[in-house]
Amino acid sequence: MASRTLQGGTRALQRLPLLSSSSTTARVRRSFTSSTRVMSSFYQSWEPKGPSVKTEIPGPKAKQAISELNQVFDTRSLNMLTDYYSSSGNYIVDPDGNTLLDVYAQIASIPVGYNNPHLIEAARSEQMVNALINRPALGNFPPADWASVLEAGILKVAPKGLNQVFTAMAGSDANETAYKAAFMWKRQQERGGANVEFTAEEMESAMKNELSPGSKPLSILSFKTAFHGRLFGSLSTTRSKPIHKLDIPAFDWPQATFPQVKYPLDQHAKENAEAERKALEEVEHLILNYHARPCAVVIEPIQSEGGDNHASPAFFRGLREVTKKHDVLLIVDEVQTGVGATGKFWAHEHWDLPTPPDMVTFSKKAQTAGYYFGNPELRPNKPYRQFNTWMGDPARALLFKAIIEEIERLDLVRHTAKVGDYLYGKLEALSKKYPGHFDNLRGKGMGTFIAFDNPKRDQFLAEAKKFGVNIGGSGQSAVRLRPMLIFEQSHADILIDVLEKVVKSLS
Amino acid sequence: MASRTLQGGTRALQRLPLLSSSSTTARVRRSFTSSTRVMSSFYQSWEPKGPSVKTEIPGPKAKQAISELNQVFDTRSLNMLTDYYSSSGNYIVDPDGNTLLDVYAQIASIPVGYNNPHLIEAARSEQMVNALINRPALGNFPPADWASVLEAGILKVAPKGLNQVFTAMAGSDANETAYKAAFMWKRQQERGGANVEFTAEEMESAMKNELSPGSKPLSILSFKTAFHGRLFGSLSTTRSKPIHKLDIPAFDWPQATFPQVKYPLDQHAKENAEAERKALEEVEHLILNYHARPCAVVIEPIQSEGGDNHASPAFFRGLREVTKKHDVLLIVDEVQTGVGATGKFWAHEHWDLPTPPDMVTFSKKAQTAGYYFGNPELRPNKPYRQFNTWMGDPARALLFKAIIEEIERLDLVRHTAKVGDYLYGKLEALSKKYPGHFDNLRGKGMGTFIAFDNPKRDQFLAEAKKFGVNIGGSGQSAVRLRPMLIFEQSHADILIDVLEKVVKSLS
Repeated sequence: MASRTLQGGTRALQRLPLLSSSSTTARVRRSFTSSTRVMSSFYQSWEPKGPSVKTEIPGPKAKQAISELNQVFDTRSLNMLTDYYSSSGNYIVDPDGNTLLDVYAQIASIPVGYNNPHLIEAARSEQMVNALINRPALGNFPPADWASVLEAGILKVAPKGLNQVFTAMAGSDANETAYKAAFMWKRQQERGGANVEFTAEEMESAMKNELSPGSKPLSILSFKTAFHGRLFGSLSTTRSKPIHKLDIPAFDWPQATFPQVKYPLDQHAKENAEAERKALEEVEHLILNYHARPCAVVIEPIQSEGGDNHASPAFFRGLREVTKKHDVLLIVDEVQTGVGATGKFWAHEHWDLPTPPDMVTFSKKAQTAGYYFGNPELRPNKPYRQFNTWMGDPARALLFKAIIEEIERLDLVRHTAKVGDYLYGKLEALSKKYPGHFDNLRGKGMGTFIAFDNPKRDQFLAEAKKFGVNIGGSGQSAVRLRPMLIFEQSHADILIDVLEKVVKSLS
Repeated sequence: MASRTLQGGTRALQRLPLLSSSSTTARVRRSFTSSTRVMSSFYQSWEPKGPSVKTEIPGPKAKQAISELNQVFDTRSLNMLTDYYSSSGNYIVDPDGNTLLDVYAQIASIPVGYNNPHLIEAARSEQMVNALINRPALGNFPPADWASVLEAGILKVAPKGLNQVFTAMAGSDANETAYKAAFMWKRQQERGGANVEFTAEEMESAMKNELSPGSKPLSILSFKTAFHGRLFGSLSTTRSKPIHKLDIPAFDWPQATFPQVKYPLDQHAKENAEAERKALEEVEHLILNYHARPCAVVIEPIQSEGGDNHASPAFFRGLREVTKKHDVLLIVDEVQTGVGATGKFWAHEHWDLPTPPDMVTFSKKAQTAGYYFGNPELRPNKPYRQFNTWMGDPARALLFKAIIEEIERLDLVRHTAKVGDYLYGKLEALSKKYPGHFDNLRGKGMGTFIAFDNPKRDQFLAEAKKFGVNIGGSGQSAVRLRPMLIFEQSHADILIDVLEKVVKSLS
């Protein structure tokens, strides 16, 4: 099977014009401007013209391969076995040659297309090879060029006001290390500062898994239907679905109600404002009264896994105000919303906050992970308090740098804002034409980060695949669109056309 | 700074004979046999002849770079800024050109040498480039060649009796996902089987972070001075040092005493057996009586971070017996001990267990992570219970495959067993010649996984660096040797020579 796939890979690579020689690459690169029109012609040159479904999915080849894979790998959550050698741009290809427009993009984590030529170039660089095979224990033996990798990559796109980063491996540990920083920060405050030494009692009780003597237990406050990861600490703040949490011990931490707003937001401004006011009241109540006092509030700009739940910028400004008032940290989890999909590089830029969040976590489209912070007090008072062997992966950090270059070169954030507006308009028209199929359309002005509810959601997604589009769901009944940043008007037209076919087939 | 480093890199790459052309590579590869003698001449051809210390460490160039790095990265745990382009084989190089024999190896995580030619080749392959830039959501969209990557890599070296793997990102989440599997398994047993549906009450209470109704809370039992990671669940089982745990909420899980044995083990057989008997008694007592009943016991074959604490094979067989008797899982944490360093591929192979451990976790030298298991009941009863977006990293899995190829080609596990015996013999002689400097020498017959205590440990490590050897510490006073698998007798001789110089300078 491996050799067959590799042959497929060779074919796919031969198809990419940029790969024939590095001088070609240089020539094509020189021709770029920030114009979407130019980008369009560029990306379309290495993409299929459109979807093409040749067999049922999975087809005969995929079925055979899946049954083999099932011997060694749990395939019950398998959506589509994928030929990553043949996939390109916005199109995902399976072993039977079925070619689908992919608006799920590996659960929102492919930013600039499959087999992106610039990423191929980055992956082939000596710097990447070196980073890949000489993996450092970053905290002890950082590479001599680590500062420059951070500055030209992860830190180049740091949210305003946050000039430091602690790197991690994925969204879950990015959130958990941010939580750890929050606990250390609050306890230091309670102790009376960074120079106050730990007592013998504190050290002894920590070794017994007890909280330090003399302090009330602390917590992280999260919101109902939130998703922040699935390790023990992050899962304690995840409140999306029972299947994520059943049987796994969790900390006794509080949850507040995420505002129960109505869509479209602008047509329900008054009642939504009331829902948001209530939610903020609940947050304040929990901060003041919950038996394990929250030292931080963690929130997604748009609750993604939980069903694409939105709130207004005013709500988030209110949350910043409440947390500031009570000296509680605000952690914004941008694992799914970050890196351009909402039409801003970071979704929280939509809020116009008076002061930045205390920490912003990232992963997915960044292809690496971590948390940004600005306040020097969030650096723990002693070394080795926030530490682990790898502390991230320089190879993945280099890939993020290449992704940032591609985003900047092609102006993909502004592009996504525009294409998102176009797509939203088309969906709005569809929702009027087919009432009951595109309920609670949401994400207006939020780039391509758009969702709607459909009562037959699972069937809806299955039908879409038959017509050549790979889409994901979330929450109870949401169809969530998570295209890449290179998704264009022409792709939106294909998507809309397929959605209409799906609705007709379901009616 | 970046360009300077890249120039250094070019120099280093030019120095490697294997990199000049692929036909050279093929020719050199053909010349291999499993003989250590041949390996020796091969590796020495691309390594420096020996250590060379030109400046104090950090020298002027490193000092300048560290002060720049400190603007964006916490450098308080920095040991040595590293030039990974110039480093090769067993030798680590800093920006001032200081070249040190590295027996710390990125906290025991470099298996086959810096800039290993075979890994360079693997990193340059189209398969690697493809895996790096098209990162899948593995559970949903596995690559068509994933079964073959697993079979030729991670699963090829699976511990006896364990034919399945759940992949992860690093040691911490490898352990935590293993713990999750243990909780789900035990609760399923309590419920009465895989087909018993969750009740509404269970789902409701899980969403409130309560344990399911009707059951006693469960726990993971670990040992005092153990280290299993630093995320919230893994940290709850870590009992090494207060600095790891202070201020971070932990689960109320039990800890048993790790046997307090005396070294050398074979000279204290009787009293050690008694200490081990007591430890097993304590484990059994906690299993039966701890208020949160353990569903699994997690243990390192040699407690590494906690100070290189050993126990006898009989103890581990006893632990297997006690856990079997009470239907509790045995999780062996081979994050540091795994992949050859103890002279067996997995350290638990030294124990001659009657039945395999239930799960074995790995990371570090594997350059990827996860847990092995065999019992089909450890696959959760429903999909999406054990799941996350990336579920590991195929690029890193490919690197492990290349590492395994290199280990097999050069017979590095057997080689390490031999070199370890040689090194242990030399250290034993040193310990007799310099009493009080090599206390509690331990690791006999355990490959190069050797440690000893020195009352001036931190000074000892600092002096060693001046003489050209990079060594790590652990626990309160342990000097732990963690050479790579390509460490040879000639390197052992250099190390012994330096250790003697260190002792003289400290006397």
